Amino acid sequence: MTQDNFSISPQLTHLDHQGEAQMVDVSAKVPTVREAVAVAIVRMQPETFAAIQAGNIAKGDVLGTARIAGIMAAKQTSNLIPLCHPLPLHKIKVEITPDSNLPGYQIYGTVKTKAETGVEMEALTAVSVAALTLYDMAKGLEKSIQIESIHLVSKTGGKSGDYSPPVV
Amino acid sequence: MTQDNFSISPQLTHLDHQGEAQMVDVSAKVPTVREAVAVAIVRMQPETFAAIQAGNIAKGDVLGTARIAGIMAAKQTSNLIPLCHPLPLHKIKVEITPDSNLPGYQIYGTVKTKAETGVEMEALTAVSVAALTLYDMAKGLEKSIQIESIHLVSKTGGKSGDYSPPVV
Amino acid sequence: MTQDNFSISPQLTHLDHQGEAQMVDVSAKVPTVREAVAVAIVRMQPETFAAIQAGNIAKGDVLGTARIAGIMAAKQTSNLIPLCHPLPLHKIKVEITPDSNLPGYQIYGTVKTKAETGVEMEALTAVSVAALTLYDMAKGLEKSIQIESIHLVSKTGGKSGDYSPPVV
Amino acid sequence: MTQDNFSISPQLTHLDHQGEAQMVDVSAKVPTVREAVAVAIVRMQPETFAAIQAGNIAKGDVLGTARIAGIMAAKQTSNLIPLCHPLPLHKIKVEITPDSNLPGYQIYGTVKTKAETGVEMEALTAVSVAALTLYDMAKGLEKSIQIESIHLVSKTGGKSGDYSPPVV
Amino acid sequence: MTQDNFSISPQLTHLDHQGEAQMVDVSAKVPTVREAVAVAIVRMQPETFAAIQAGNIAKGDVLGTARIAGIMAAKQTSNLIPLCHPLPLHKIKVEITPDSNLPGYQIYGTVKTKAETGVEMEALTAVSVAALTLYDMAKGLEKSIQIESIHLVSKTGGKSGDYSPPVV
Amino acid sequence: MTQDNFSISPQLTHLDHQGEAQMVDVSAKVPTVREAVAVAIVRMQPETFAAIQAGNIAKGDVLGTARIAGIMAAKQTSNLIPLCHPLPLHKIKVEITPDSNLPGYQIYGTVKTKAETGVEMEALTAVSVAALTLYDMAKGLEKSIQIESIHLVSKTGGKSGDYSPPVV
Repeated sequence: MTQDNFSISPQLTHLDHQGEAQMVDVSAKVPTVREAVAVAIVRMQPETFAAIQAGNIAKGDVLGTARIAGIMAAKQTSNLIPLCHPLPLHKIKVEITPDSNLPGYQIYGTVKTKAETGVEMEALTAVSVAALTLYDMAKGLEKSIQIESIHLVSKTGGKSGDYSPPVV
Repeated sequence: MTQDNFSISPQLTHLDHQGEAQMVDVSAKVPTVREAVAVAIVRMQPETFAAIQAGNIAKGDVLGTARIAGIMAAKQTSNLIPLCHPLPLHKIKVEITPDSNLPGYQIYGTVKTKAETGVEMEALTAVSVAALTLYDMAKGLEKSIQIESIHLVSKTGGKSGDYSPPVV
Repeated sequence: MTQDNFSISPQLTHLDHQGEAQMVDVSAKVPTVREAVAVAIVRMQPETFAAIQAGNIAKGDVLGTARIAGIMAAKQTSNLIPLCHPLPLHKIKVEITPDSNLPGYQIYGTVKTKAETGVEMEALTAVSVAALTLYDMAKGLEKSIQIESIHLVSKTGGKSGDYSPPVV
Repeated sequence: MTQDNFSISPQLTHLDHQGEAQMVDVSAKVPTVREAVAVAIVRMQPETFAAIQAGNIAKGDVLGTARIAGIMAAKQTSNLIPLCHPLPLHKIKVEITPDSNLPGYQIYGTVKTKAETGVEMEALTAVSVAALTLYDMAKGLEKSIQIESIHLVSKTGGKSGDYSPPVV
Repeated sequence: MTQDNFSISPQLTHLDHQGEAQMVDVSAKVPTVREAVAVAIVRMQPETFAAIQAGNIAKGDVLGTARIAGIMAAKQTSNLIPLCHPLPLHKIKVEITPDSNLPGYQIYGTVKTKAETGVEMEALTAVSVAALTLYDMAKGLEKSIQIESIHLVSKTGGKSGDYSPPVV
Repeated sequence: MTQDNFSISPQLTHLDHQGEAQMVDVSAKVPTVREAVAVAIVRMQPETFAAIQAGNIAKGDVLGTARIAGIMAAKQTSNLIPLCHPLPLHKIKVEITPDSNLPGYQIYGTVKTKAETGVEMEALTAVSVAALTLYDMAKGLEKSIQIESIHLVSKTGGKSGDYSPPVV
């Protein structure tokens, strides 16, 4: 009834040999400290950027709300991504930097755990939801805001080793 | 103790006149049928794209899992985005189209309600989480996959009227 | 990009004409009062039944915990069943009756709403989770407990009309 | 199998005539606009209060995080309080005022809906979780922080009429 | 104030000596690898079975949706079953096999962890929600579908030892 | 991009040196057994207290529902309190004692884990939500019920050592 976990494709690790999605067995892995960093870009019109920057001055609530949303979303990752393992998380940090050249915001998310599997999806979920929250705060002003370039920046720990994106 | 809801900036509708984030009062609005469509792009290496396409043939589980994840995420929108109103949702549809020119996938999400406020964030959340799920399925093969160009495609219903993105 | 909602099969209403799962559009339906009643049976050894009955006497916590679990689970239905619509719920009642002939318990769940679509899945989810909770309370005593015969007892309201199960 | 909803006690409305907890039937009620305001007090040592006030200056993140936590918690009310009805919510506002006389913070929460039942529990949940979040931010400094005097300040709309607390 | 954890009944482990439900203390147990397998049967009319089988051909979305729902539900177990311990989960697999003799489907769920307590309830929850999802997909066609025979198939690891159901 | 975790204030451990809220890094800490006990008081009119006591006799559902709500809420702590770490929990116990001198109820919550960080917030969340649930059960009878004196009673385990509140 249960089957060996070799995949239909060695790379699509979430498929078993029948091509069915499953949450793969990580119970034989040793827990190690793992960290992942992801990024997202939010690009908007100069007027929108100026309004957010101005609106944020009073209480810091525009960027603060997006940071908190990103942190809380990282904790929901295994409830959102069907085949993600539920893990204890040991650190979550979301940083949002205004960039007048975009214009818009760069959002970095860092997640750390000591576990049998990595936290790339947690870092990516954190920056995605922080970006969606910025969108939500400013959508009354501009509907053409774009979220761009969500990707993994780095990854340390785990059997597959460290990762840094290719230099372009 | 409670204050009028005029904003510190007429456009940042989620800030009150003290600059504090709040969930704005929509109780005076009339419920109308509203629909929003959003899109996300997932771009990858040709080999990754080929592997997903091949892996999906057996049971359809790669794209099927991402579609279901997007639909379920739309229902979590008000739990993820701090200032979103919880709404009944009347339709959620996620469509994922392979595009060998990217190479990668185009993900469209459509959400419909009859309510006092719109469903842009639900559509955007649906496509974002569907994209993250595709990422998760293929991350064993390629870590440089990118999620790009998340934006609103159209919006109908509500006082602010219909929206289509500017033609470039 | 969006398509008409006629199904690949007129009866599998959750599939569109491409065979893809979607949350169907109910926005054109008129909200009406709807009620659904479902049942589940939990069957066990006489000794297990006697132990639960005895253990429940002190504070009523065995059956009380299962009732509360069923009520709370009904509210999670649209988060658990991927294509269920999130709805306001107007009444949830779970009743657990000991039956020494089984021996075990009959669990009835009643859910009511005023909405565009019905609450059969909410009633079925309520009795299923109440049954699982009884199982959990007694699993230290007997692992062969069975949950049986989960089905819809009746349904009123909505376009498809009232339903009562066939008399056998 | 289903029973009339008259209570074992006319006042304990969540008990049926058998004394069993249920989510009462509100389907016969007419939706009206309802608002509730609740308050909580967080009392601490002067040094703790001074540290929070100082720490909040840089980015506003101490009070901002507590406000967002309260707003998001209001949306979880029916998932936390077993017999609460899930409702659409039309406004949520949390305000946190420093009070050097306590010393500590006064937290007011305002929730509004148009529904068949009221939002007292949503307002009370908002202030409770905002208070717990303040506690969490400062617990490294002082473990004897107290949350006090959580109560309803006012309630408007609904059949039971408006409410203001007795003047002491 | 806190009490020893001996139960009112040695077998109803979730009751303390006052008969009150509690989440029992497992902190003294040693984490070991544990696996549980559960099963559920979904029985329906031959016409319903034929329609699901036909509808599943195009994209695999009928069975695929139910599998994903079961996997995601396993991760919600401790949120649904009041006295279940929240655990990291290391593997979740749901397999749905058509059986024309029923006619209907057999659903097997396998869950694995390395923890202080077992995952029987996670496996049982996975198959229950997968079954409910099949029900939901086909309820437009037949309301008399039944979910039957939810029970534990096997359990390995932990102090209480391995379990296989009695041969009938 | 990522920064050292020294705080703007050594005591407000959830702020980094820029004053931004983050979930602090506990990955270098050794997991130890930790326990926390918290208390809340619910104070009401004598008539309300008498009605709850009378209503509870039949099935124990008033206090039983509040106990279960508290236990389940403890498991939601990291989803409610933005900067709390998600942890496995090894024991949760909620005890509700009637006190005719208040009149009202004393609610004690005990939570235990073996983890890198403590469970004070889990214990405080448990008693807060149990208190809110009592409020909900009785609010039809009295709207001036107050929740008072939520605080930490004791804490053992962890680097900061044991804690007992000051004797007054």
